[in-house]
Amino acid sequence: MEGLFQYFMPVKLCVGAGESRKVSQYIKGDNIFIISDPFLYQNGLAQTIGDSLAGKNVKYFFEVEPNPSCESVDKAAGQAREMKADCVIGLGGGSALDVSKIVSCLVTNEGSIYDYYAGGSRQLKKREITLMCIPTTAGTGSEVTNVGVYTNKKAGIKMPMVNDELWADYAVVDYELTYTLPAAMTASTGMDAFCHAIEAYWNKGANPVCDMLAIGAMELVLNNIEIACQKPQDDEARAKMMEASLIAGIAFSQTRTTGVHALSFPLTTEFHANHGTACAITLPAFIKISEEKQGEKMKRLAKYLGYNTVDELANGIWALMKKIGLPVRLSQLGVKETDLQHITEVGLGAVIMQLTPATMNEETVYQLLQSIL
Amino acid sequence: MEGLFQYFMPVKLCVGAGESRKVSQYIKGDNIFIISDPFLYQNGLAQTIGDSLAGKNVKYFFEVEPNPSCESVDKAAGQAREMKADCVIGLGGGSALDVSKIVSCLVTNEGSIYDYYAGGSRQLKKREITLMCIPTTAGTGSEVTNVGVYTNKKAGIKMPMVNDELWADYAVVDYELTYTLPAAMTASTGMDAFCHAIEAYWNKGANPVCDMLAIGAMELVLNNIEIACQKPQDDEARAKMMEASLIAGIAFSQTRTTGVHALSFPLTTEFHANHGTACAITLPAFIKISEEKQGEKMKRLAKYLGYNTVDELANGIWALMKKIGLPVRLSQLGVKETDLQHITEVGLGAVIMQLTPATMNEETVYQLLQSIL
Repeated sequence: MEGLFQYFMPVKLCVGAGESRKVSQYIKGDNIFIISDPFLYQNGLAQTIGDSLAGKNVKYFFEVEPNPSCESVDKAAGQAREMKADCVIGLGGGSALDVSKIVSCLVTNEGSIYDYYAGGSRQLKKREITLMCIPTTAGTGSEVTNVGVYTNKKAGIKMPMVNDELWADYAVVDYELTYTLPAAMTASTGMDAFCHAIEAYWNKGANPVCDMLAIGAMELVLNNIEIACQKPQDDEARAKMMEASLIAGIAFSQTRTTGVHALSFPLTTEFHANHGTACAITLPAFIKISEEKQGEKMKRLAKYLGYNTVDELANGIWALMKKIGLPVRLSQLGVKETDLQHITEVGLGAVIMQLTPATMNEETVYQLLQSIL
Repeated sequence: MEGLFQYFMPVKLCVGAGESRKVSQYIKGDNIFIISDPFLYQNGLAQTIGDSLAGKNVKYFFEVEPNPSCESVDKAAGQAREMKADCVIGLGGGSALDVSKIVSCLVTNEGSIYDYYAGGSRQLKKREITLMCIPTTAGTGSEVTNVGVYTNKKAGIKMPMVNDELWADYAVVDYELTYTLPAAMTASTGMDAFCHAIEAYWNKGANPVCDMLAIGAMELVLNNIEIACQKPQDDEARAKMMEASLIAGIAFSQTRTTGVHALSFPLTTEFHANHGTACAITLPAFIKISEEKQGEKMKRLAKYLGYNTVDELANGIWALMKKIGLPVRLSQLGVKETDLQHITEVGLGAVIMQLTPATMNEETVYQLLQSIL
């Protein structure tokens, strides 16, 4: 019968065109630490937001890299502590937001991220300062999750940290920030949002609240991603893609992700695919096997999205990915047959792999990878 | 282009069969005050939950009446203060939950509800104790809103109070509690949930997150309400109706309701209809006029729910109401033509009336009422 579920998503959402220039109304305290990346330094967006905080003491950290490292986190935390930050603002894609989440905690939790993450022995105490996340891509949904993904560079391992202290106080979602996103990034981040939605929907921990959100997010991506890639200034397509990312984020914040994300970890750290591409590349293959344990539910989804069968949905996603310029075969990322065993093992090492609605073991994962080599 | 919206729903949801007997895991502190109604005293449900809190000091208040009065609130608050409650549990339909919400605040806010509500001059300070809401009907959604509706008996006025201190810490949603709900209550509370969903969907303050939830909730009600009325022990129908109520509650917690609820207030206080019936009775008429300002959106909804036109949807709801034994004409509640002007005026006095997607003035509201007399 009906399974148990829990749901908790306490982030205040402030959504709309231009909202990112009005954030001062939400901020108490004088010392603001903005965490962003080199690209948003160069195009001046971070400074525009900083300048809108008239009368505040604003400092910046622009050293967030893709797949952000624990070392970057600790460096940023040191600077935030030094300025006695009252508020940390994360501005950027998933990387900057993820760094801002843990840094906002470390301001009043001493030590390094390693003390709290991946085998660290300390528990985060309640966050005492404000955390605001402002996404500049439409994909990660990080602004509405309690997850941060960090990379231990020495060990070469990328791992998620899940903690209720990582919920932002505010997610400020302003689609105008995505006008300058290049088509390739629009494509890969948009497909990341689609993956979040479908992985929430077919998840072993799915629930009816998130199912509805997931369906809505998938429909929004399918209806808008091509236009957003072709016409970067198209208001409606940009707004809808931002909504899709947000709604998919809420959905997977409750369920976590599945095999698609589990396999993306080695593809990003070892084959340097960006996150969205590394997820999307296995998506059609996962859709094809999702009927094993979610047959009826996946058939309903396919129908809702305008396809006759789950297989047709998988093929439709595959065709869409080709159209928007995403790779659809692992060999396009430089993966060789001899790499598949290792990717299989790393993927199976992620606990989320077993939330996939199909049997996931060395044989099935290897086969899946081989089918898209 | 895309409108601004905000979203905030910080309640922790704990959903599943039997969850109401496991609430002790969420409760800190020793003094528990359970607020419920005479029916749940008689059938022993409140005591079952109280007994599950082994080792705690549990006191009960069973005097919650339909359309709860400010006097009942103050009486309960006095008892909760006297026992120095660490946690208030509301158990029941919307009335008991609404009383529990404000009482949990009044434990550490001195004075009467009148000091804080409907023209009162004081602001509620942050709630200091735990508030848990456990619904026993599938309809009000009160467990996931920051609204309480209270009646000033002397003035004969029923008015909502909206305050962020009224968010529960926990909503414990256990469909097994609805097995004993009589068919008439299943019908009226279920249609209340449908009203919440459609009023969130066509609301002037609608947003894409709540739209998806609302659509899902409406579909669940339409697919399950008849079975739940006919077979009170049908696990699946009861579970789905409880989900519908919860999901619709989340949706309207963000948008508020519209004309349907505005007109229900005089119909409950003056014509003694129960809340769900008082809402549902005007619903088909409101659906018929909703195309005025939400034409495209309502057409999409009708199609999604299996109807060709919005008018067909209205007629389908009307037929469903007759089938499950709900009145469909105001005269069935004892309303006379000479009452319509007064009902119109009271309805227009509620601010939510203007969130309806149609022109709402003395003429249009009177016409709407007359059409269903």
